[in-house]
Amino acid sequence: MPVPTHVFDPPFNILRSSHVVLDVVDLKASRDFYENAVGLHVEDADSETVYLRAVEEHQHHSLVLRKAATAACHRLGFRVASENDLDKAAAWFAANGIVYSFVERPFQGRTMHVTDPFGFQIELYATMEKRPHLLRRFDLYKGCHPQRLDHFNVFAAEVQDTVDFYARLGFRLTEYGEEDGDNGRIAAAWMHRKGNVHDFAITNGRGPRLHHFAYWVPTAMNILHLCDVMASSGYLKNLERGPGRHGISNAFFLYVRDPDGHRLELYTSDYQTMDTDHEPLRWSLKDPRRQTLWGAPAPRSWFEQGSQFNGQAVREPAFVADVTIAD
Amino acid sequence: MPVPTHVFDPPFNILRSSHVVLDVVDLKASRDFYENAVGLHVEDADSETVYLRAVEEHQHHSLVLRKAATAACHRLGFRVASENDLDKAAAWFAANGIVYSFVERPFQGRTMHVTDPFGFQIELYATMEKRPHLLRRFDLYKGCHPQRLDHFNVFAAEVQDTVDFYARLGFRLTEYGEEDGDNGRIAAAWMHRKGNVHDFAITNGRGPRLHHFAYWVPTAMNILHLCDVMASSGYLKNLERGPGRHGISNAFFLYVRDPDGHRLELYTSDYQTMDTDHEPLRWSLKDPRRQTLWGAPAPRSWFEQGSQFNGQAVREPAFVADVTIAD
Amino acid sequence: MPVPTHVFDPPFNILRSSHVVLDVVDLKASRDFYENAVGLHVEDADSETVYLRAVEEHQHHSLVLRKAATAACHRLGFRVASENDLDKAAAWFAANGIVYSFVERPFQGRTMHVTDPFGFQIELYATMEKRPHLLRRFDLYKGCHPQRLDHFNVFAAEVQDTVDFYARLGFRLTEYGEEDGDNGRIAAAWMHRKGNVHDFAITNGRGPRLHHFAYWVPTAMNILHLCDVMASSGYLKNLERGPGRHGISNAFFLYVRDPDGHRLELYTSDYQTMDTDHEPLRWSLKDPRRQTLWGAPAPRSWFEQGSQFNGQAVREPAFVADVTIAD
Amino acid sequence: MPVPTHVFDPPFNILRSSHVVLDVVDLKASRDFYENAVGLHVEDADSETVYLRAVEEHQHHSLVLRKAATAACHRLGFRVASENDLDKAAAWFAANGIVYSFVERPFQGRTMHVTDPFGFQIELYATMEKRPHLLRRFDLYKGCHPQRLDHFNVFAAEVQDTVDFYARLGFRLTEYGEEDGDNGRIAAAWMHRKGNVHDFAITNGRGPRLHHFAYWVPTAMNILHLCDVMASSGYLKNLERGPGRHGISNAFFLYVRDPDGHRLELYTSDYQTMDTDHEPLRWSLKDPRRQTLWGAPAPRSWFEQGSQFNGQAVREPAFVADVTIAD
Repeated sequence: MPVPTHVFDPPFNILRSSHVVLDVVDLKASRDFYENAVGLHVEDADSETVYLRAVEEHQHHSLVLRKAATAACHRLGFRVASENDLDKAAAWFAANGIVYSFVERPFQGRTMHVTDPFGFQIELYATMEKRPHLLRRFDLYKGCHPQRLDHFNVFAAEVQDTVDFYARLGFRLTEYGEEDGDNGRIAAAWMHRKGNVHDFAITNGRGPRLHHFAYWVPTAMNILHLCDVMASSGYLKNLERGPGRHGISNAFFLYVRDPDGHRLELYTSDYQTMDTDHEPLRWSLKDPRRQTLWGAPAPRSWFEQGSQFNGQAVREPAFVADVTIAD
Repeated sequence: MPVPTHVFDPPFNILRSSHVVLDVVDLKASRDFYENAVGLHVEDADSETVYLRAVEEHQHHSLVLRKAATAACHRLGFRVASENDLDKAAAWFAANGIVYSFVERPFQGRTMHVTDPFGFQIELYATMEKRPHLLRRFDLYKGCHPQRLDHFNVFAAEVQDTVDFYARLGFRLTEYGEEDGDNGRIAAAWMHRKGNVHDFAITNGRGPRLHHFAYWVPTAMNILHLCDVMASSGYLKNLERGPGRHGISNAFFLYVRDPDGHRLELYTSDYQTMDTDHEPLRWSLKDPRRQTLWGAPAPRSWFEQGSQFNGQAVREPAFVADVTIAD
Repeated sequence: MPVPTHVFDPPFNILRSSHVVLDVVDLKASRDFYENAVGLHVEDADSETVYLRAVEEHQHHSLVLRKAATAACHRLGFRVASENDLDKAAAWFAANGIVYSFVERPFQGRTMHVTDPFGFQIELYATMEKRPHLLRRFDLYKGCHPQRLDHFNVFAAEVQDTVDFYARLGFRLTEYGEEDGDNGRIAAAWMHRKGNVHDFAITNGRGPRLHHFAYWVPTAMNILHLCDVMASSGYLKNLERGPGRHGISNAFFLYVRDPDGHRLELYTSDYQTMDTDHEPLRWSLKDPRRQTLWGAPAPRSWFEQGSQFNGQAVREPAFVADVTIAD
Repeated sequence: MPVPTHVFDPPFNILRSSHVVLDVVDLKASRDFYENAVGLHVEDADSETVYLRAVEEHQHHSLVLRKAATAACHRLGFRVASENDLDKAAAWFAANGIVYSFVERPFQGRTMHVTDPFGFQIELYATMEKRPHLLRRFDLYKGCHPQRLDHFNVFAAEVQDTVDFYARLGFRLTEYGEEDGDNGRIAAAWMHRKGNVHDFAITNGRGPRLHHFAYWVPTAMNILHLCDVMASSGYLKNLERGPGRHGISNAFFLYVRDPDGHRLELYTSDYQTMDTDHEPLRWSLKDPRRQTLWGAPAPRSWFEQGSQFNGQAVREPAFVADVTIAD
């Protein structure tokens, strides 16, 4: 199996995963979930859209909820280093036959919409309106004290090609799940730009779909408290998996579902990966500890369900590994 | 269903659950588990017996491991207030046709062995050798920092009679699970002497058997760390259930199995119950939150398996409730 | 120095410390402090009085704020086991020449007001209106998640006599600070009824005054969060001492001052003391660890300031120990 | 006051702060402190040198203790991205008249020793022997579970020049303390390469000296436990400051002194800074919250004491600000 060699000098500089744009059918219900249970801060809202951010974030939003007839993932947002990187991105997509467009997005500077060859709807931008961060406004902390958006995790029907594509864009592999044997195929890959375990994880499965997006929280205690809060405020059935510890990434995790079924991970305690010789960690798909170092197995829904991208057909994966999903 | 009225002025004064005596087939393996993974302090040991205690305990031992051909629960130890209470206990057992004997036990004062009418092998004593507690010896803390033995939980084949018997001995009911309907039967009861949720919990099931004994730990973080430690030191399969929060008792819990399969609970964050008008909390057996306020359901083993008392035949329960086991 | 022998069979049965009644000059400001920063639950309020309780408490209130011209401690409330105990208390006080009266208090059953020989204004009662506890209403948790009132700590001008008096009422000594030498005098005593380190602590000093009252919180993390919340919501100067760990009681603590300067301790992780042979732990006044096992020394205010009881003159202490105050 | 504009395209690529080399007079005592109290892992040791690392680190060492006649800071180690960066560094230092040399260091690849113009003894390298990280070896965790070296903090006699120098090397400013007024001078600066608050902090004071080096720990609970462990294992007096929260960096901190007086910070919960438009946060030297958002003030020793670099004379600072030290 070819582990991709990431490009140290990519065609344009993606800094990190930045925000997610979700289509939701009941804007009020979704806002209540993210604001009062999870504890994100509503920065702006009108009858069509709610913008939220976490306490550490200077940027205007890391989660955008859009009222829609059908629930879907609309866009995954990555931040590039400069306006010049947007131009370099445009040139590179053009040279590679990938359609893109520049669009106007509220609170954001020049924004590029692009759908990658595998159907993932991406949004790139270099500047966003700033707000004072709320780190020291502990009096405003709620829910599980989400601190910052950390990463996205997607189902890809063509997992190897998708991994290779993002490696060409400078995403570096930190951990991966692979079939055993000489011709074992990659079933899941964790890739980063910002120096921790991941900005973008790619999992073999019916895709393109969003498996989850994740916010970093300060400690496991905040995650336990979220379980308690959700159980006592009508969100018991929205607790899908965890709390527990992943072998992969070493993270302490909880997976919850929002009112539309979009999956959110609360996540803490991974590790740094900025050393240039940082070696990807291989997990055999037979090793149960990669999914949970300890704790109950994931429910079936966690392996199977995800959010479609609006406008993208979902394809069956290129192969079915013995265990196809990882966390 | 008759909720028992506990006796405020019992025939003798049991202070609290105190210690458990377990028969184990591999003394070295058991010691390693309790000392190095769980983190109990070995106070004395020879080739036949290991005595352990937790950091808060002044008493010589709260767990006794005895080398034996067959794994079993040998005794559940309760402490009475005074030597005089031992005499009052003797008189009361005699008056009620229950056989008892006074025995010599190392490190303990005068000790009474008695088997209650339902087959639970009890040990009563008023004094035990003292040791300086280790609360301030943080340099000796290990594992999950167990602080004190908190309670026992047993399977009883005659649950109502067992509850009534202990109510007569002054055990007070704090919570109970009950079938719905006018003739609903008690399926589980949590009873205390010391002023928190329980010293002794009694669950409908094949009995007499020990379901588990529990140590109090300072915080949930200690329990999460134990999961990590067990997963990385060869005890992954000994993690049976949790971590999670019980509806019953509000406790944060983890259940682990020792090398013989004896079940240990690590437990924190229940509540006080010393008010004389404290009312028992009823749980419908249909309410899933009593078992877990949130979190994965308990595995089958947790409902079915327990430690026999050596020398006691196990009987089928008087009835099978829709859900027969509680935590 | 005479360590008092507590009475196992006291003249009447005090169960535990129950509530405190404070006179405050700005009812709105006080309510804001206790409700929004500390996180107590307002159970009832009108223009003259606010009643608050913590999440575990079934009783209607554990803190009563009364609008008054002058800030003071009005009453320390203890709960007795039964109405009969109130009658026994009345008889005992009468026999000992101590004036008492029965009064009407909202939400409480028959209530006795009595001022002990040292000027401490006490309130005894056997029943109070009940409310469903809020333990499982995690969605309502605020501030530091206070769980229950734990104890009172007072300055007494006649410390030995005060200790002896409460020992006659069945309060048991758990720890004490004492001058070194053959004639060393007790400078502080921690006494309990409910089975943990204390319900009532008595410290040598200008008295009678209330040093502090304390709520139990689940973990040290809740206390750290309260520091953050107070620092970011205008209460920075109300943080008086801590967080840190006491040698005495092993508790993790924080002392804060309310808008009138009444001192509140947030407290966790002490130990059980119900064994009848539990021996008091002596601390030399020269041992700095009794005050703080680690951490910065207490500020001068902490040693000197306290809340007067309204209507009681403050007297100088009978002696000045090398270190006169303990925690 | 000139806030430096950091260079986005520095002359060579420093990835991060990597390790510190300390001269210690009692190697056994120092090892005991770092291994058994703090909880670092000894990777190699002989009679002259001990090499330690934290659980997340793949590299052979992040702390080197060298037996010496006099305690001193020997070297601060930074990692560069590649061997080529070492050559670029050599060229740049030569061009700027700064003496450097390539040396052999055990377990490290080609290593450059250079003393910057202000006397800070630096060590640059691109490769170090790798070891499997210990993140998942929770059974080996000790002390406060240190996870990785995070940063260095130094006293500089020429603070502005030092800040400017490191800005030229690509260090980016995240927070700084500055005198008020139009001509206010920088008194302290926090600068990073790796994307969090700092790799290198520079404080006005008698320099060159090391103020402290810091390890990241998972949560505040680990720091509280270290306080308990140190207080109970003979290191009480080595607890210098904290625990508390800095305004600067938002970190929860503890400062301890090793047996030679070298200062170590245990540190958690800062924030990400990789956005290219991340703006430095200015603190007035009059704002007490920059030092401690809450909690007791720092002791005098913390402002005044530091570790000399062996072979470097210490100079008085260029100016004395109203408050000269920051954390």
